[in-house]
This record gives sequence, C-alpha cells and structure tokens, in this order.
Amino acid sequence: MLESLLKPDSIAVIGASRTPGKVGYEVLNNLVKGGYKGAIVPVNPSSDEVCGVKCYSDLKTYGQKIEMAVIAIPTRFVVQAVDDAIEAGAKAITIITAGFKEVGEEGLKLELEIAAKCSARGVRLLGPNCLGLINAHHGMNASFATHMPAPGGISVVSQSGALCTAILDWSASRNLGLSKLISMGNKADVSETDFLTAFANDDETTVIVGYLESISSGDEFMKAAEEASVNKPVVIFKSGVTQAGGKAASSHTGSLAGADIAYGAAFHRSGVVRADTFESLFDYAMAFAMQPLPKGDRVAIITNAGGPGIMAADAVELAGMEICELNNASATALASKLPAAASVGNPIDVLGDADSARYVMAVKAAQDDESVDAIVIILTPQAMTKPAETARAIAECARNEKPIVVSFMGGLDVSKGRDVLMSLNLPDYPSPERAVAALKAMVDYAAWLKRPPRVLTRFLVNRRRAKRIIKRQVRTKRLQVAEAPAKDILRAYGFNVPEGHLACTADEAVDVAKRIGYPLAMKISSPDIIHKSDMGGVKLNLDSANAVRDAFDLMMMRISENVPGANLDEGVYLEKMCKRGREVILGMTRDPQFGPMLMFGLGGIFVEIMKDVTFHIAPITEVEAMQMLESTKSYALLEGARGQGRVDIKALATALQRISQLVTDFPEIQEMDINPFIVGQPGEDSVAADARFTLSGDLS
Amino acid sequence: MLESLLKPDSIAVIGASRTPGKVGYEVLNNLVKGGYKGAIVPVNPSSDEVCGVKCYSDLKTYGQKIEMAVIAIPTRFVVQAVDDAIEAGAKAITIITAGFKEVGEEGLKLELEIAAKCSARGVRLLGPNCLGLINAHHGMNASFATHMPAPGGISVVSQSGALCTAILDWSASRNLGLSKLISMGNKADVSETDFLTAFANDDETTVIVGYLESISSGDEFMKAAEEASVNKPVVIFKSGVTQAGGKAASSHTGSLAGADIAYGAAFHRSGVVRADTFESLFDYAMAFAMQPLPKGDRVAIITNAGGPGIMAADAVELAGMEICELNNASATALASKLPAAASVGNPIDVLGDADSARYVMAVKAAQDDESVDAIVIILTPQAMTKPAETARAIAECARNEKPIVVSFMGGLDVSKGRDVLMSLNLPDYPSPERAVAALKAMVDYAAWLKRPPRVLTRFLVNRRRAKRIIKRQVRTKRLQVAEAPAKDILRAYGFNVPEGHLACTADEAVDVAKRIGYPLAMKISSPDIIHKSDMGGVKLNLDSANAVRDAFDLMMMRISENVPGANLDEGVYLEKMCKRGREVILGMTRDPQFGPMLMFGLGGIFVEIMKDVTFHIAPITEVEAMQMLESTKSYALLEGARGQGRVDIKALATALQRISQLVTDFPEIQEMDINPFIVGQPGEDSVAADARFTLSGDLS
Repeated sequence: MLESLLKPDSIAVIGASRTPGKVGYEVLNNLVKGGYKGAIVPVNPSSDEVCGVKCYSDLKTYGQKIEMAVIAIPTRFVVQAVDDAIEAGAKAITIITAGFKEVGEEGLKLELEIAAKCSARGVRLLGPNCLGLINAHHGMNASFATHMPAPGGISVVSQSGALCTAILDWSASRNLGLSKLISMGNKADVSETDFLTAFANDDETTVIVGYLESISSGDEFMKAAEEASVNKPVVIFKSGVTQAGGKAASSHTGSLAGADIAYGAAFHRSGVVRADTFESLFDYAMAFAMQPLPKGDRVAIITNAGGPGIMAADAVELAGMEICELNNASATALASKLPAAASVGNPIDVLGDADSARYVMAVKAAQDDESVDAIVIILTPQAMTKPAETARAIAECARNEKPIVVSFMGGLDVSKGRDVLMSLNLPDYPSPERAVAALKAMVDYAAWLKRPPRVLTRFLVNRRRAKRIIKRQVRTKRLQVAEAPAKDILRAYGFNVPEGHLACTADEAVDVAKRIGYPLAMKISSPDIIHKSDMGGVKLNLDSANAVRDAFDLMMMRISENVPGANLDEGVYLEKMCKRGREVILGMTRDPQFGPMLMFGLGGIFVEIMKDVTFHIAPITEVEAMQMLESTKSYALLEGARGQGRVDIKALATALQRISQLVTDFPEIQEMDINPFIVGQPGEDSVAADARFTLSGDLS
Repeated sequence: MLESLLKPDSIAVIGASRTPGKVGYEVLNNLVKGGYKGAIVPVNPSSDEVCGVKCYSDLKTYGQKIEMAVIAIPTRFVVQAVDDAIEAGAKAITIITAGFKEVGEEGLKLELEIAAKCSARGVRLLGPNCLGLINAHHGMNASFATHMPAPGGISVVSQSGALCTAILDWSASRNLGLSKLISMGNKADVSETDFLTAFANDDETTVIVGYLESISSGDEFMKAAEEASVNKPVVIFKSGVTQAGGKAASSHTGSLAGADIAYGAAFHRSGVVRADTFESLFDYAMAFAMQPLPKGDRVAIITNAGGPGIMAADAVELAGMEICELNNASATALASKLPAAASVGNPIDVLGDADSARYVMAVKAAQDDESVDAIVIILTPQAMTKPAETARAIAECARNEKPIVVSFMGGLDVSKGRDVLMSLNLPDYPSPERAVAALKAMVDYAAWLKRPPRVLTRFLVNRRRAKRIIKRQVRTKRLQVAEAPAKDILRAYGFNVPEGHLACTADEAVDVAKRIGYPLAMKISSPDIIHKSDMGGVKLNLDSANAVRDAFDLMMMRISENVPGANLDEGVYLEKMCKRGREVILGMTRDPQFGPMLMFGLGGIFVEIMKDVTFHIAPITEVEAMQMLESTKSYALLEGARGQGRVDIKALATALQRISQLVTDFPEIQEMDINPFIVGQPGEDSVAADARFTLSGDLS
C-alpha cells in the first residue's frame, strides 16, 4: 500500500537547488549519491541541471509520469506543488517543508487542505515538516540526512527528524545496516500505523523500530502492532512518559491511570517490545536483527574475567532469567580441554590469557548443551587477548540456533573486535548489563509469541436492560450514575448485588428496612455527592427501625451542612449488609487513545497508599484476567498468604471479564469503579458492594 | 601512609624479562615508556640490560636502597624475593604473581606468611594476584596494562584486574585522564579502606572510583568512606548483588535483610555514591571530575531537537528533580535573541539549524538565571550543525558555577565534538538519559554533604539489668530468648511493655490472671517454639478464670501435637491485653560486615507481602530514625492517611533509637524483632507487644 512511497520507480524533487546546504540540494544530492536506480526528476524553474541531473522548470515540461514527489520549497508554494505532482501522476508525496500544523491555526488549515487533496486522489502523503525517508535496499535516500546506511534488516519510523540524524550517525559509526528509515513529521496522512503494516509485510525488514511521542489512533495502532508483532519484533521507545498528569478523575481507576500506563498496557497487549531508554531501543533491535530467538530463559555466560562475569550473572538474575550450569557431561568435556584454573561453572571463566580457541571451546559446549537457551560472551582486553581474532572465531562457530550476545569491554584495543562482531552479525554491547538486557527483551518477545490463543468469553447478560438504564441516565443528564441505577446495570450483567431500595423519608426507610431485613446499610443517593463516606453519607450495621430512623435524620442533617444545596430528592439507598470478605476494587477508565482500561487492585490501602494496581485494555480473556490478578504484589493475599483464607479467585477473574464485556458494549461508560467488590472464599458468593459510573453525554 | 606504594622514588622490578609478552617485561617496559622519573632497578640473574635499563642479578648487587619492589616471578620464588626486597629497604611491595589464596589452602598459607613478613617490618603489600598500579601524575605505570592514561582527577581502585584493563582501554578511547589506578588482587594487606584514606588525602585526586566484589572490613570501610566522602565524591560499583540469598534467619528482620541491602545501607550512611551499572560508574565519575556540584535540583535543558529534549525532561522528572523554566526576564531576553520559532520554555529549543552562537546565548541565559541549578545540553547532528565548533563555544562560555552535562547524540559526525567536550572538561554522554542520571548523582551527593550534623541521643537506661539478663541467657545457652526475658530487656531500655508473668500450670495461670486482671493474652513460652501463633501457641482476649483454664489446657495439648518433644517447662506467659493501635515491626539483624542493621516496617502484610521496609545501620540519630520512617511507602498511613488517625511518630523514632542504643551496647544480640510494636495516637502510650531476641554464644 505504501509501495509508491517506499519503492517508487521515479522521484521528482520539487525545489531541487544548486546551493549545497539547502534542503533541495541535499535531497537531490543524496538521491544521486545513494545510487537510486529509478528516474530522478529535479524541478527548478531557474536551472538546467543540478548535481549532474537534467532539471525541469516544471513537471509539465518533463512530460512523463512520476511515482513519488519530494517537496522542499517555501511553505506558500507547497499547495501548488502538490497539485502539480498529483497532476503528473504521483502516487506518493513527501513534504519536507515546515510551517504547517506546528506553527498554529493557519498552518493546520493549509495542512488539512493538502491532506484532503491527496486523500481525494488516493495519494499517500508523508510529512509535512519531516526529514524525508530512506530505503537502503533500493539505494534511495530521499532525505536531507547525509548518511546512507548499508542495507540491513532494521526499519525505523520516527516522530523526530533530528533523532533520525542521530540514529543514522550512530549506526554509521557502528556499521549497522538499516532497511528503511522514515521521518514522519506532522503525520498529516501516513502514520506509525501505516508503517507498522507496511514493514510487517516487507521482506527486507526483520525488525521494526519506532520512536513515538504520540499515536494517531490507538485502536488502529494496537491492531497493526499486534499483526506486525506476530510476524517480527516491534521495538518502540515512547517519550513524554511523565507528561500525563493533571487529568481530573472522579474514580479511583481514573486517577491512578495516566497516559503512560495506557501506552504500557497497549504495548503489552500488542506484543510490542518497549524500550525504556533511547540506548535500549537499538540495543534490543540489534539483538533481534542479528540473532535467533531463544527457546527459554536459561543463560550461559562465557568470560575471560571474573568481575564482569559476576556483573552479567547479577543482571541475568535481576532480570528474572536463569543462570544455568552446563550439564555434567558438557562440563566435564569442557573442563578436560580448558586449563585447570578455568571454571566450567556459570559463568564459564576461560581465564585472562584466553585465546580464541578457548572461547570457541566454551561457545561450542554451550551450544551443544540442551540446558542452555542463550549465551552471553564477555571479553576484556588483557595482555594476551586478541579481540578481532576472537570475534572472528566466535562468529565462525556460532550456529545461529541459540542467541549469542557479546560485550567486548573497553574502547581502543577492542574496537576492531567490536567492528568484526557487528559485521558478522554478533550484537556487541559496551557492558555485560546491556547485553543481558537485550537478551531479556528477546526472551519476553519469544514468550509473547507463544501466548495462548485469545478466546473471549461472552457471558449471557441482559444487555437490553442495561441499555435502558444508561439511556435514561444520559437523557436526563445524570452522567454521574447513583448507586441504585449503577447496581441495576451490574445486576443486568450478572453481578451479585445486595438487595436494596431508595427511600425519601424516614418512614419510607423504615418500611424498606422491614422488607429487606436487618442489618442494613444506608447510603446517601445524590448526584452531587461522590465521596459519600467523607461527607457523612454512609451508615452501616443498622439493626432496628429506630436505628434506621435516627440514621436517616442524622444523615440528612449532616449532608445539608457538609454540602449545602446538594440535591437530596432521591433520599437514601438502603440495602442488606454484605457479609465480610476480602475487599478489592474493580474499575475501568476510558483512555482517549486506547479505549477502556480495566483496573484491579486490593481495596483501600493497597490502592491508595501502595499503588498496587494493574491495568489491561479491554476486552480481556480469562487468561488476561488471571494475569491482571497475578501481577499485583498483593496477589499472595488472595491465595491465602498469612492465613487469610484463599478467596474465590475465579470469581474475580469472571467479574473482570464481565466488566470488560459491559464497557465494550457501552462506549457511553467513561469510568466506573466497583469499590469494594467483596470476594468470598471459593464456593461463597461475591458481591458488588458499591458501584459508581460516569457516563459520557456525547454518545447515544 | 601509602606514599611508598603510590609515589616511590625508586622501583625494583623483580623478574624483569627480556621477552615481550611476559609480565616481567611488560611491567619494566611500561615503567620506562611511561616516563617514570625515579630509579628503575630491573632484577634478573641472566640479563645485563632490559628495555635499555641496566639490570642486576639481585638487589644486593645493586647495593642501594629501593623504595618499592614489583614482583613478577613464579610463585615458589616469591617468598625469597619478598625477603630480599625488605632487606634492600623496600617500604612497599607489589606482588603481581598469582597462585596464592585464590588457588586454595596452600596458596593461602603462603600469602599469610608473606603478609606477616611485611607487616612485621612495616612494609605495605599490594596484591598478590594483581595487575599492578598506575600513578599517571608521576608517569608511573607499574602494571602490565598497556595504556598509560593522561593525568586526570579520577583515582580508581578495583578488585578485578581485568576490569582495570577495560577501564584503561575505555578511558583511552575517550581521552579521559586518571590519577591513580590500583588493581588490589587478593588484598593480603592493603585494601579499599587504605586507598579510600590515601585518595581522600591526595591532592591529585578529585574523585574516588571503586569496583568492589567484597569488603575486607565493614566498620573500617564505613569510617574511611565517610571521611573520604566529606572531602570528595566516592563512587562505587559493587557486583555480586544477587548472591546474598540462602541466609537462614529466625527473625523477620533477618529474613528480609540480604547482603546487598547491607551494602546499600553502608553506602548510604557513608555518603558513597552508588553506581548500579558498570557504565554509570564512569558516567558519574566524569561529571564529578569535570563539573562543580549543583546548589539544588532545578534543571534547565537546552536542545536543538524536540524529541531528545522530551527524553531529557522525562529523565529529570523520573529522577525526582525539577524541570525549571527560566524566570520571565531571562526568558524574554533570550527570546528576543533567538528565532521566533525557538522555544524559551523548558526544554529551551534552539532549533535544528542552531549554530554555536545560539547555544551560547541559551547557556548564558541559564547560567545567569537564579532559578537554574544545573544545565543539560543536547545536540543532534543535523544539516547545519557544527558539533566541534559548538562544543568549543559552550566550553568557552561555561563559568564553572553550575554543573553542565552534555549529550552529543550520534556516532561519526559528532565524534570530534564529543572529543572537544571531554578535552574541555564538559562531560559528554551518548544519551540524554545518561547525562541526567549523572546530574542526579551530583544532586544526591551535594545533598549528603549538607546533611545535618549527626547527634546521637543517649537515653537513660538500666544497662546493668539488661546485661544481667543477657548474660544469664548466654550462660544457660538459651540463645533464643523467650518472651518474658525479652520483655525484661526491653523494659530495662525504657520500653513500655504490658504487665505479664509466667505460669506453669492451669491453676497458676488462673492466679496470675487474677493478679493482672482481664482481658488477658496467653502465649506459649518455649525455646523450641519460635512461630508461636502458627503452632497454636497464642490465645487472646481471655476474659475469665474459666477461659484461662480452658486456654491453658488446650494450648498444652495442641503444642504437644504440633511440636512433639518441645520443652514446655516454662509453661505460658500471661499478660494484660494491649489496647489496639497501629502495629509496626521494629527489628535488627547483625550483618557480618556492617554490624547492626535496624529495620522498620508496618506490621503484617506490609512487611511480608509488600516488603515495604527500610534499613539503617546503627547507631542512628533522631534525624536518621525519621528518615527510616519516612522512606517507607506506608508512612502516609502513620501520618493519618485514609482517616486512620495520626500515630505518635515521635514514639516510633524514639523506639528505633532505643533499639539502636541497645544493640550497640550488646554485641551479643544477633537479631531481634519487636513484632508487633503497637503505636498509639500522639499522647497515648506505645507498647512492645511481643519481642524476640537471638543471642550469639561466642561473645561475653
């Protein structure tokens, strides 16, 4: 679909300049120097020839069709240039020129106008305000960045053009090949989603790397990212992680979920490998591009120095992987070949005077050994060390069945060895820790690939009833749903809720109490009061008519004092006291990008003080619901730690899935909490003891 | 004290060889090449001259005194060589030869013999089994490592010789100067403690860097490290962090405290800057060596690219530092000089086409602005960027009043600029995140320097009484102290404990109960039972003589079933029920290296499931006790979060200090828990409700 952008047969450079340093010159010069095989058509009304290529005053004069146009002229001429390019048959246009959305209202208008023109004619648009793009496999450097990378397997899409220049400069210094490099600029049309799909289907791409500051469409991104991840690793660094804040939220779920948590949940769901630092982005990409995936997480370490071996072992353990020893037979065989002082434990220490032969013996032993899934090789430049020779020898014996990551530590003496490693597809890192981190990324991705198929459970619910309640709330603009209707919605979705009724007077309350039976809970029901207990709006364990009457009168008085003017027309909600059990919070908040994010956490302190909560984007499967539960620290309590009695964990997983179904069915639900959800022991009932919904008035 | 080792006037190389590649050749060659100004005395019975230096068959033939000897001969000749060197007046000896402690029993004996010889004559010994040492300011490369670093301010002490070679190779590649570099080998005599002291008093050292796998003496280390840290930053990377495990412990405190936690607490206390990764060790050291300390944590970011600016801002916020905007006047002044599209917010974006002049304007503005404490400068290699020129311009305008850290991102094009930065004392990092992390290390160290003076409170206690109880327990080999005597010890140290007595029969129990009054708690008192409640050995809220009698009989039966053969001679301990309050755990475990480590955590779940605990090495001041409390996540609960009622925080701080005094007074106490310590609201009493001590039988 993006063929015309990524692999055009002909490229017009509109604004080709004769002045080195000008973008229009640099783009043309890069195309020519890069060895692009298609037709290059410079357009410049005042030149006959630029960079040795015949130049045309306009595309009409050229007369033939063009497939892609790169536009690098002042902003005010861009619209005309787009028209001309479309007229000349362009199927893709790259606008390098800046001065659009990023400068304000006027620029945005211009940008939308151009995007509309392109869209109307089925022309794909890259930019504006970008560096351009590179396809190393086609010798196409249609950007104003100087370095043309060697052809490789890593395709990069970046929301920052400047970062592209840094990436190109860095990959040049390490001789790392790239496949495509795209600077997306303002993303007026094509965005990360398009490139995820394009790269996923591109045979010249083995790893997809992304730098993102925002995402154009959360749903489409997740779909494309998951489809891509199934084919090949997608590694993304997302910046702006701390800039979420400031979101006003009425639910616990809403206040705990920031934008970064939503990105994390979206990446997790889609199989995206998240890089937490800029350096780790390419650390991981290198490993994926050069090495096979591991079958498990058992790591053997080979080193010529004790200290760095310990560092690697620390890193393996901290990452939750396994330090594995060679099996007896391999260990004995290896020991017989290595000097007596060498260690065949793990780390395998081939000693400070190790030559390449010793490294080869150790690598072969680790490759042969079935108890090893992955290999970390460390070298320090000691007196007898021959880094380049050792690098070559390791590469020759590497069988490409188990991943090998390498750290040749140092600077000058090891540099040749490091170059050899990279040229022979052995990813090399400046420290053992970074090598191990790359391995961990591979282990996690390999585990994701093996995840069970996603089977959504569809529960039998009374969707029509829930719809009626929600519609009524929206119609009457009661977007903060009070407890009674909130519980009605939950009941319709199969939740167990205590019997309860509204009462507007003390007498009514006593009547209701008699019907339900004691003991009772009384809660204020008012659209103006969200934090009921803080305002004196909750009274528990009422055990007689007198107690009910007293509680009603007192509550009305207190609320009037605490929230003057609060609407008290609905009176109070009376319900049967729930029996005791473990209290948890189940909730959902709708992320503007990624949609409904489910939350789970143990009640009270665990959520508010310890922030021990997990999120997952709906809809979720039973497996995912269980993962949510298990990934809280406090999960041990649910399992019965400290003699608390095991709770009905399955009931929790089911409740999360029911919420998932509810919020997927009703996009009107913006936020919801069931707080507390009281879960009993296995076999007992679990109860939604209190609930709160916030609806959106915009949707029908 | 280590002058003869670090700055000798003359050096004998015993085992000087004529064969390149042999250690004895390399050491001599390095000394000659390095430009060492003192007398070099090669000793080799079979050569007249090595590396152009006259060679002697032995030190007697040389006839004059030598100050330092480097020994690089086969293990079996080393003792004789040491004798000869001492005879020839050596004040320091470096043994490079391996084959000592690290190979086993025999080697250890030899090593101890040599160490004793040296010690008897006041000769300091480096090694054996080391790379040697370098003093760049004296042109002395007395090691077999090839690279002689340029003279600089960073002194390195390392427990791994191989790592020294990697460090030298890396620093050569970055042109980073070093002062001293020491490979400690087996640490038979001089260790990290000696070098901390030596470097602290060395005018040629501005930053001390250490790589450690173990510490020879915890107490001495902490003392030396704190004294050094007061003078100059000490940055240490400690490996082997995950190898603590497996320690059997009877107390909660013991089971939660691993060796790595003890190192962390010791570093924290001594002002040591801990590097968590190998790369961060020199990342931090560079910043300390090249830049002044910040006065606060308000950071300004200057960048020519948006994306990397966001990365830096993320890193600043995640590190808990402040992103500060320029004040209005500075911002306006700067804005008037920069192009309209530039941003004078924070990050200050000088735009992709920024020349050195724009960087200079921004740096000057940030330096002038009182709301800025530190500056992060980022450069990406874009079309108009001139990295080397910009680096020079930044260095010229840097006033050395506020720290500046830099990240020139990329590889090839920026490499000249990076070299210029380093040569002009501007620390340069491959990514904004690493630059920010170095800044954070500076901020933390600067804060430590400004810590309040340590004033220990000495409480009036009945030390003699505690001593009597402890001695009796040790004498009778009851090293697991039962509840009754444990509480007596606590009472002697000013703790409030509930009234209680032992009872051996049901009748006695009823008598005791009458004396104390109801309600009562009954707990089994037996040296064989540690986890009382798990074994049915705790019964609470007994409110009548009958209840006491029933409880006694039932408890005896249950315990006999659950712990057959348990000694039940002491019977049960009866005490007044404590009133309710917030339960916390106060404890101590004695680390083999660093001595008594105090622990604090909220009771039960918070300790066992959430692991929300803090440690501090005793003795502690009131300020440190408060820090312990405040650094738990659950501290908010003590302060009254979630309407729990504020507890008497001062009482907790006092209790911790009393424990600190107790365990400092009695080294016999190996471990102790007060669990729970029940803390009331301010004004109420706090109570040690249960207590457990483990004593050591070795001490008097």
